[in-house]
Amino acid sequence: MAGPTFAERVRQAVRGSGTPLIVGIDPAPEELPAQTASLAPADRARVYGLAAVEAARTGGATGVKVQAAFFEALGPEGLNVFAEVLRAARGMGLLTIADVKRSDVGHTAKAYARAYLGPEAPFRADAVTVTPYVGSDGVRPFLEAAARDGSGVLILVRTSNVGGNEVQQLIADDGARVFERVAALLPSWIRIAGVPPGTLGVVIGATQSADAARLRAALPDSVILAPGFGAQGGEAVALQALLDDRGGGLLVPVSRGISQACRDARDWRQALVEGVTETKRQLRVALPSS
Amino acid sequence: MAGPTFAERVRQAVRGSGTPLIVGIDPAPEELPAQTASLAPADRARVYGLAAVEAARTGGATGVKVQAAFFEALGPEGLNVFAEVLRAARGMGLLTIADVKRSDVGHTAKAYARAYLGPEAPFRADAVTVTPYVGSDGVRPFLEAAARDGSGVLILVRTSNVGGNEVQQLIADDGARVFERVAALLPSWIRIAGVPPGTLGVVIGATQSADAARLRAALPDSVILAPGFGAQGGEAVALQALLDDRGGGLLVPVSRGISQACRDARDWRQALVEGVTETKRQLRVALPSS
Repeated sequence: MAGPTFAERVRQAVRGSGTPLIVGIDPAPEELPAQTASLAPADRARVYGLAAVEAARTGGATGVKVQAAFFEALGPEGLNVFAEVLRAARGMGLLTIADVKRSDVGHTAKAYARAYLGPEAPFRADAVTVTPYVGSDGVRPFLEAAARDGSGVLILVRTSNVGGNEVQQLIADDGARVFERVAALLPSWIRIAGVPPGTLGVVIGATQSADAARLRAALPDSVILAPGFGAQGGEAVALQALLDDRGGGLLVPVSRGISQACRDARDWRQALVEGVTETKRQLRVALPSS
Repeated sequence: MAGPTFAERVRQAVRGSGTPLIVGIDPAPEELPAQTASLAPADRARVYGLAAVEAARTGGATGVKVQAAFFEALGPEGLNVFAEVLRAARGMGLLTIADVKRSDVGHTAKAYARAYLGPEAPFRADAVTVTPYVGSDGVRPFLEAAARDGSGVLILVRTSNVGGNEVQQLIADDGARVFERVAALLPSWIRIAGVPPGTLGVVIGATQSADAARLRAALPDSVILAPGFGAQGGEAVALQALLDDRGGGLLVPVSRGISQACRDARDWRQALVEGVTETKRQLRVALPSS
């Protein structure tokens, strides 16, 4: 692969849009616009998902993160919509992240990679989220597939939910915590797969300000996807610490913070666009240097 | 929920069939019967999947474990087949496990649970596999949904792949390893969710004989799904150590060990049935007491 890596594509995309904002598309039924309530569930997810993609473009976000769970809950028909939303976003030149948090051993991980990465993938995305518990042989097939066309693999390292502490915050015998040990493993996973370092990114909750600087130091070249800004109480200081030494390498997905006003809005599509522009403004305040 | 728990249903099913064997359905394209090569990919997965379900019944297995990845790789059409295979197995009275290893935080985990658990689920199964890295709030929605109709949630604790050691074998400050700490957390996850203990099971590789007895002691009442017997080199001693004190509580999924003969067989459907009966025989040798 001679083209740009995922990290380079992210840098270029963020430079172009002027914001690390990624619009999170999580069509939870109870949060969808009330005006769409008469539609069949999959149609409702489609109308909302495509409007969110449109709002990401109109509002000038860098891309979208589409959460598979809400489409999967609607069955095969919902997954048709998942594919359609990803395609629409790609067609508009937005960066696309399939938030699927898949995880399995080699043989099976390879099948998952075929689903999301590369020109033939039915749910093709620019990056896919993956969990680390099964180790390098569960991640390698994703990395290999991603490297072929400059896609990315975002490994879940540190989540912002309360329960995340139970496993991730366990203290290892060297005094480091499990999530730090996972972060420390990643350079070897890149080597084992033989891919450009820019192929592997990580997911680190934006609310973990105490950990942010150390994690960024451990992963200087990785794209960090940092959920939790706004709706989940993410702090500006954590986001700043997650920037790389060139003031980039960061993507901030925001879902509820953008969608919350649209449920009862008179013009819910317009409310989505306003949610995007307002969140962009908040991010500029939080990250004046980026 | 006044009906039997998942653990009780497993005990009853294994008593009825006389074997802990679960037929793993992993339609990897390169391993499917050569005679089906002319079919479109999703049709091929359907023909194979339904034949494997039929072989599980004819051969007298307890149930099937259907691996989502190979269907997901075929897109929405493949997921139609995934749903169809699960439905067919359920219709024959086989125990069904959706091997999806999903993982996400509360709100999103709830959507995944809707996809797999309960009478309305489009991919309804008797149990679903879930990874533990995000902690209790990522597992609770699955447990709550499962408890409603006596379904089960199988938490990935110890995998049999080599890379599994990288994270799972990290030593914690009390000298226990991460997978042991995860196992030790599970009783609290059951309490937090307020579900019957029989709702929560675990996935522990059958090749991990050194760990098996300790893990069973930590989880005396849990169903253990133990992949790795046969094709992956699983040992009888590990399986024996995973039995509970009543000689049960164990399910052994076998995929390649059953399917490997069918790729080039003259009668591949018959080869699948023979794979099931031969694997049952091997399991009786490995587990004479069960």
